[in-house]
Amino acid sequence: YPAGDPMWGYFTAVAGQDGEIDAEELQRCLSQAGIHGSYTPFSLETCRIMIAMLDRDFTGKMGFNEFKELWGALNAWKQNFCAVDHDRSGTVEPHEMNQAILSMGYRLNPPTLNAIVKRYSKNGRIFFDDYVACCVKLRALTDAFRRRDSMQQGMVNFIYDDFLQCTMAI
Amino acid sequence: YPAGDPMWGYFTAVAGQDGEIDAEELQRCLSQAGIHGSYTPFSLETCRIMIAMLDRDFTGKMGFNEFKELWGALNAWKQNFCAVDHDRSGTVEPHEMNQAILSMGYRLNPPTLNAIVKRYSKNGRIFFDDYVACCVKLRALTDAFRRRDSMQQGMVNFIYDDFLQCTMAI
Ligand SMILES: [Ca+2]
Ligand SMILES: [Ca+2]
Ligand SMILES: [Ca+2]
Repeated sequence: YPAGDPMWGYFTAVAGQDGEIDAEELQRCLSQAGIHGSYTPFSLETCRIMIAMLDRDFTGKMGFNEFKELWGALNAWKQNFCAVDHDRSGTVEPHEMNQAILSMGYRLNPPTLNAIVKRYSKNGRIFFDDYVACCVKLRALTDAFRRRDSMQQGMVNFIYDDFLQCTMAI
Repeated sequence: YPAGDPMWGYFTAVAGQDGEIDAEELQRCLSQAGIHGSYTPFSLETCRIMIAMLDRDFTGKMGFNEFKELWGALNAWKQNFCAVDHDRSGTVEPHEMNQAILSMGYRLNPPTLNAIVKRYSKNGRIFFDDYVACCVKLRALTDAFRRRDSMQQGMVNFIYDDFLQCTMAI
């Protein structure tokens, strides 16, 4: 493994004996790293969703490359969130959430945006932890959809088991 | 509204002025009702998923009929969980979870079962709160799938926005 990579030592310290990171370890590690900054730390539920996003072999754990991929995605989402949350209240409002989703390159129609924003709001505001959970799901579901939409027609055929495998874990 | 229904007074007391129950109110109400028994109370996340399961109009809230439907489902799931959790440890183990899912009438292949069990386990055990979250999702996703599988072929065509509307909220 890349001995020159500064994150490798960090990863091995967190992962422990089995060389992989589970949801509890991820939560501890993200808290210690302070990636949430002045926002509330990530819930265990969000950490599980993060792992599920990258866990193609359904072990419930995360190796080094997946960890680095997640780290990059988290930093991008945080930057995006900060750009929208001007007053650093730790929340974004519904219309700002719409903007944020569009700026990530997703093309969604208004009812879909509305359903998403409602789901991740508390009293009409979206907190950082829920924002990240939303971004993770949106990315994982879009990835799963695109992998099956080989003709890029915006339409996919799912059999029942495949549909559940794509959706139950996240 | 059914004045003779003993749950109506209870519902209105919880719902307050707007006559609907949101996730925070649901969490409080289920805790007070003690439906979790000797198990840990429901997390806010699980309460949000419960509402999303029944919330066809995407308001993020629940009316009286939906509340009664949820109440019935919760009692059935609790009974099912107790039947599997013989020693009342508050957890079921993976092979018992497989059994529980099959006994609810779902026909899933082994990789799907495996993915589901991994996702809802902590250290190889499934707690009541996660069990219910799993049941809610499985039911909501299966309902969404079946509504679109009008020929009952076990296969559905999803366009991207519809796929996200079915899956992002739960
Ligand atoms: Ca893995
Ligand atoms: Ca703000
Ligand atoms: Ca047990």
